[in-house]
Amino acid sequence: MTVQQIKTADVADIQAAKHAKFPLNMWYVAALSKEVQDKPLGRTLLNHPIVFYRTPSGQVSALEDRCCHRDLPLSLGTIDKDGIRCGYHGLLFDGTGKCIEVPGQSKIPSKAIISAYPVKEQGALIWIWFGSEGNAEPTCEPPTYDVHTDERYLYDGDKYHYQAPYQLIHDNLLDLSHLGYVHLHTIGGNAKLHMNAEMTVEAKGDSVKVVRKMPNSTPPPTYTAAYPFKGNVDRWQEIIFHPSHLEIWTGAVDVNTASLDDPERGGFHLKGFHAVTPETDETCFYIWTQASNPSSQPMESMKLIIDQSAMTFDEDKVVIEAQYANMKRFADKPMIDIHVDVGANRARRIIARLKKQKQA
Amino acid sequence: MTVQQIKTADVADIQAAKHAKFPLNMWYVAALSKEVQDKPLGRTLLNHPIVFYRTPSGQVSALEDRCCHRDLPLSLGTIDKDGIRCGYHGLLFDGTGKCIEVPGQSKIPSKAIISAYPVKEQGALIWIWFGSEGNAEPTCEPPTYDVHTDERYLYDGDKYHYQAPYQLIHDNLLDLSHLGYVHLHTIGGNAKLHMNAEMTVEAKGDSVKVVRKMPNSTPPPTYTAAYPFKGNVDRWQEIIFHPSHLEIWTGAVDVNTASLDDPERGGFHLKGFHAVTPETDETCFYIWTQASNPSSQPMESMKLIIDQSAMTFDEDKVVIEAQYANMKRFADKPMIDIHVDVGANRARRIIARLKKQKQA
Amino acid sequence: MTVQQIKTADVADIQAAKHAKFPLNMWYVAALSKEVQDKPLGRTLLNHPIVFYRTPSGQVSALEDRCCHRDLPLSLGTIDKDGIRCGYHGLLFDGTGKCIEVPGQSKIPSKAIISAYPVKEQGALIWIWFGSEGNAEPTCEPPTYDVHTDERYLYDGDKYHYQAPYQLIHDNLLDLSHLGYVHLHTIGGNAKLHMNAEMTVEAKGDSVKVVRKMPNSTPPPTYTAAYPFKGNVDRWQEIIFHPSHLEIWTGAVDVNTASLDDPERGGFHLKGFHAVTPETDETCFYIWTQASNPSSQPMESMKLIIDQSAMTFDEDKVVIEAQYANMKRFADKPMIDIHVDVGANRARRIIARLKKQKQA
Repeated sequence: MTVQQIKTADVADIQAAKHAKFPLNMWYVAALSKEVQDKPLGRTLLNHPIVFYRTPSGQVSALEDRCCHRDLPLSLGTIDKDGIRCGYHGLLFDGTGKCIEVPGQSKIPSKAIISAYPVKEQGALIWIWFGSEGNAEPTCEPPTYDVHTDERYLYDGDKYHYQAPYQLIHDNLLDLSHLGYVHLHTIGGNAKLHMNAEMTVEAKGDSVKVVRKMPNSTPPPTYTAAYPFKGNVDRWQEIIFHPSHLEIWTGAVDVNTASLDDPERGGFHLKGFHAVTPETDETCFYIWTQASNPSSQPMESMKLIIDQSAMTFDEDKVVIEAQYANMKRFADKPMIDIHVDVGANRARRIIARLKKQKQA
Repeated sequence: MTVQQIKTADVADIQAAKHAKFPLNMWYVAALSKEVQDKPLGRTLLNHPIVFYRTPSGQVSALEDRCCHRDLPLSLGTIDKDGIRCGYHGLLFDGTGKCIEVPGQSKIPSKAIISAYPVKEQGALIWIWFGSEGNAEPTCEPPTYDVHTDERYLYDGDKYHYQAPYQLIHDNLLDLSHLGYVHLHTIGGNAKLHMNAEMTVEAKGDSVKVVRKMPNSTPPPTYTAAYPFKGNVDRWQEIIFHPSHLEIWTGAVDVNTASLDDPERGGFHLKGFHAVTPETDETCFYIWTQASNPSSQPMESMKLIIDQSAMTFDEDKVVIEAQYANMKRFADKPMIDIHVDVGANRARRIIARLKKQKQA
Repeated sequence: MTVQQIKTADVADIQAAKHAKFPLNMWYVAALSKEVQDKPLGRTLLNHPIVFYRTPSGQVSALEDRCCHRDLPLSLGTIDKDGIRCGYHGLLFDGTGKCIEVPGQSKIPSKAIISAYPVKEQGALIWIWFGSEGNAEPTCEPPTYDVHTDERYLYDGDKYHYQAPYQLIHDNLLDLSHLGYVHLHTIGGNAKLHMNAEMTVEAKGDSVKVVRKMPNSTPPPTYTAAYPFKGNVDRWQEIIFHPSHLEIWTGAVDVNTASLDDPERGGFHLKGFHAVTPETDETCFYIWTQASNPSSQPMESMKLIIDQSAMTFDEDKVVIEAQYANMKRFADKPMIDIHVDVGANRARRIIARLKKQKQA
């Protein structure tokens, strides 16, 4: 194949990137369902360039983003009832990666096949399985997340691309003490309040749970707009880290009207789903939904909550990308830990263990 | 020279690029004549940064794009009746690369000379000779192309810059079966028609000729706008590959009114000249003209033909650049050949042979 | 510290850059005073990323631009009366680089300290000391520049970022013969006049002085707009190079009305201060002020002088950046010297000597 000889540039780089290590044999969130509708979606995850598409019957598939004829990205192609068709010479691939049509040619070369990835769509999310060598098939179901199907909540979400490695977002979400400095004008509020909040950290299996309580405190602007609080509130933040995503349950009740240990307590709730999926060693996707139970003008409040969440995550993105760029500028300098890092450091140890364990 | 010590960065890169191999001892198309008028044109070809300029008397010259005093690109300078003058301290160079004036200084240093390249202007095109070591002078004339001086045709053209190696454009032009998928809305038409067309491929010396016939077929939109066809047409595509450029002759006659083997047949003709000249190992210039003999409102039709050709080449550029980027992402994966690749693969073997042969 | 393991990319690059050599144990201009007011300023100088800030009491400090907790640039933080506060978790650093507050934590880790740089503000300029290993404290005062406090002159200035190494700007400023080619329409005028001007070059210690005289010549457009010259003028250019900056004194008197050797002569004066401070090995900051004594409509003339100076320096920036890009493209080709290079070459020898001497 004479075409091959062109492909010499950057090979070493690409190969190096492909061998970068992330935990394998687990499900990652690939996209929100709403991102994969009538057009193919090209997205690199864990250094794998992948095309996601939905056939007219509704089935989502994930293939290597490459026609095996001349390497055109299939994400530039078109969706057919039986699969996805390349936009250069029309080769058609089914959901298993097999080429099932070469226009103008009756025999299909036996090597005309590309990689397929197991995917599963579940409650507004598309999950993808990354297995280790010889472990291509999923050995478990994707994590469940009931909030998206719970009628008590409205929700929406979005996808952000980050110029930073994915674990920096774990760090950020596991330490909400930054709210007072980074998000002063939305969900934050008083900085000292956050820094001094009572905090418990508990690790269990591959999860870490961080709970912070702020009794008898002033509700932040987003809260009072969405819910008719009478005055001060008892406020909580509960963060559960899983290797593929974090659940963040925050909210407040009127002061002294419920126990913050009662899982069925009332008041105002924000239930955030925060998936962080590596794109490359240095970049990632942050895919989030925010659910809530606003009682004052629910639709308007919900729009406000989503807008303010987006604004909040925009602020985080600026901070985290600047942090990573600076980590590279100061790569030889040590960092120091402070009290708020306990949860984040636990999560980093879990990821480190999974990387070793599951790639063996 | 203390200035020299600054110039350490990127040297290895640049040197590596300069030794990249392209066929030498041949003429390449450098530019359309209309691109080199009253201002210098800086253009890198085969990894050589070159300035092209036309003196008031009309003579085109090509020099190394560098003043030998402090390395300012001469393409930022001004044209003088005797040559080109540097825009920093005013040194003047003639068409042989010799410095013939240093303002404020009577003696001109003997080393004040830069490289000159043989160029020849011929029928709307500027050709440049790249010789191998010790073979600086042309050993033949540039290829002829009579269409630009043939009164039966109107023509115009343009220059495109590609983020892709030049042979990917050869592949594209030698396989017009992509018309049905990439250019559906202009010169393409029915995809299956193209894929199933009778095709002959013939190699002779350094050329490859691909002929495809599509008898009794529906004319595509561009054709019917420019020519009063009565209904179905006998349509042809004839592609001749040369190492420096391709000639593509396409057209149609009313069905059964002429033999597609008669070189003097009537009907509607599109005569494309497609030069592809490497800029660097990974980039190139695509310099094209399109000639035609529209009979319905010739000027309007010609404008339409040029506009649609440009639109078509825009579509190709998107595909080819995406293809190359993806080739790098999937550098370790094999490609497979299909039936339409015969012509392109022949051309690749010719370039491979010329690279070996002429650099010896 | 598990966070550290992320920081592997680009380390070699960064380390290489940090060991690049510039003269040390001297003061460089960091910024104009007006650049450091109520917001922190992040600026890399000599490959050191630094944050400059002014406390409410007016004191300017310069610290490593990095919170030692998680590497966020302090330049994204906020100014406090006692120092600068990180915008992520609120750590507060004083002007010596010591962390003096960790919100929510009573004990401050003893290693919570970052580098501080000696700075001194003096006559509209902020100077910074870069010492060699073990030589952190300044051993002398910053250079003085009296024009900014001389009531006879009005002045203003600006800061330019250059994609070129700093010594190329020295070259440019030490050889004003380029005025006739690069700045034809502002301060330049007749090219031959500049090239043929009588020139003396004198080196003394770490300084070089270039004097050019152009008696009985036509005043350039900027001059005649600002000053009521009667006709031809006796014009001068006096350039003094220092390792951190250049002083350029240009001007003119009516022909035969004063000696160009009389330091107290009248006429129209332009006194330029031109600091050039390396950012990285390949980039720099050009920080300039232009002072003058316009007699015709002083405020309007001054605005014109600053506008035309900026336009002039824009023209230089285009030339110098193109020059450097081309030096890299032609890194293997020699340059030749001409008569106008005497001053610039002397300055390069001084910098070369200082680099060796002061780093020992």
